[in-house]
Amino acid sequence: MQSRPPVRALVFDVFGTVVDWRGSIIRECRALGKSRKLAVDWAAFADAWRAGYRPAMARVRSGELPWMSIDQLHRMILDELLVKYSITGLSEADKDHWNRVWHRLTGWPDAVAGLTRLRSRYILATLSNGNVALLTNMAKYAGLPWDCILSAELARHYKPDPETYQMAADLLGLRPEQVMMVAAHKGDLRAAQAVGLQAAFVTRPMEFGPERTPDLTPDPAFTINAVDFHDLAAQLGV
Amino acid sequence: MQSRPPVRALVFDVFGTVVDWRGSIIRECRALGKSRKLAVDWAAFADAWRAGYRPAMARVRSGELPWMSIDQLHRMILDELLVKYSITGLSEADKDHWNRVWHRLTGWPDAVAGLTRLRSRYILATLSNGNVALLTNMAKYAGLPWDCILSAELARHYKPDPETYQMAADLLGLRPEQVMMVAAHKGDLRAAQAVGLQAAFVTRPMEFGPERTPDLTPDPAFTINAVDFHDLAAQLGV
Repeated sequence: MQSRPPVRALVFDVFGTVVDWRGSIIRECRALGKSRKLAVDWAAFADAWRAGYRPAMARVRSGELPWMSIDQLHRMILDELLVKYSITGLSEADKDHWNRVWHRLTGWPDAVAGLTRLRSRYILATLSNGNVALLTNMAKYAGLPWDCILSAELARHYKPDPETYQMAADLLGLRPEQVMMVAAHKGDLRAAQAVGLQAAFVTRPMEFGPERTPDLTPDPAFTINAVDFHDLAAQLGV
Repeated sequence: MQSRPPVRALVFDVFGTVVDWRGSIIRECRALGKSRKLAVDWAAFADAWRAGYRPAMARVRSGELPWMSIDQLHRMILDELLVKYSITGLSEADKDHWNRVWHRLTGWPDAVAGLTRLRSRYILATLSNGNVALLTNMAKYAGLPWDCILSAELARHYKPDPETYQMAADLLGLRPEQVMMVAAHKGDLRAAQAVGLQAAFVTRPMEFGPERTPDLTPDPAFTINAVDFHDLAAQLGV
């Protein structure tokens, strides 16, 4: 861990870093499929839903699409998947409820305890591309103890646009170097560092399931490299 | 209590409704004055500081001043008061710390327990003219259990501008009538109702100290009239 100015706030990527989106989506879709007698590979369905998110967001970032929230992007992708998987007979309320499965994701096993420990010393905020309603509902559902919900929605810029990270520091009334971005994704961290934030890399080997291992290699360019939130807390001296 | 559609979120005015700004400011200023041997009527000082806030905000609302956060407005007023009260010899760090007394306000006696009770059923958010950093720091200091920090700063419009209330519903992903504004100030509630929010009036007879009684009369135009947050919870069936 290199020397650094004192951190006041930790801001967290959420999907994959705090919550197990894949496990949560598969679990709920499988239950839904069972009740409706749908024979679908729900792991593939979850992966396709998530895979649609980055290109949809890129269309917003490039200006091809107007500003749309992640709820709206998830719904656009879900509607395409329902056609692709020939799933019919759902009411608008059914589809809306299904789309909100992203509001009902649960944390990695260390998430709630690790965040609670970190919160005793630091301001904890989300800094996610998820919209405010999604993040607020998810926090209530999963018991995530945030001090503040910050979202790309508030900047109307998706990560990794620099405006998103700068907004977080500004809204918290801090200089960028007083804020540490925590994420399982190196691109997110590098973009935060480019704005002056500190960076903590937390590995989440199971984010994409057992068959695809993400990049887990520590990088000394990050302020901290940790294996979970307890390790992060220990390295921060909490 | 008149019949109403189901409420999903309660959004709270903070200064005066949740926290006792006057008592908190007097207490901290008095301690500071003692350590610096300043002979000042701190109750009058607190009242003058607060009294400067509305006209300063009006200058932002009218466009005379560019957007400024409450931290910035409080500082502008503090600087004037330091001159008026002939208080000298403070460093920039001293003044900044003093200005942040507004981040260190404490709740009315029923605030934490009442909010905790309400939070078991509803999404709880601030909807204050205080900036995000102020509200986040205050929540941590006073133990206020918000699900989400919403602020006029996010709309760049101060209450009672309608944009502020509409933003709260939009960011929570709710229709206005699914949101209830909670405040000790009727003007705030009427402005929220004009946008379609429900309204709960909670009286705070001591907001302005023992010598000035605010308007405490219930008004049947509000969805609920309550004497504190426990009464509000009871009337909401929590």
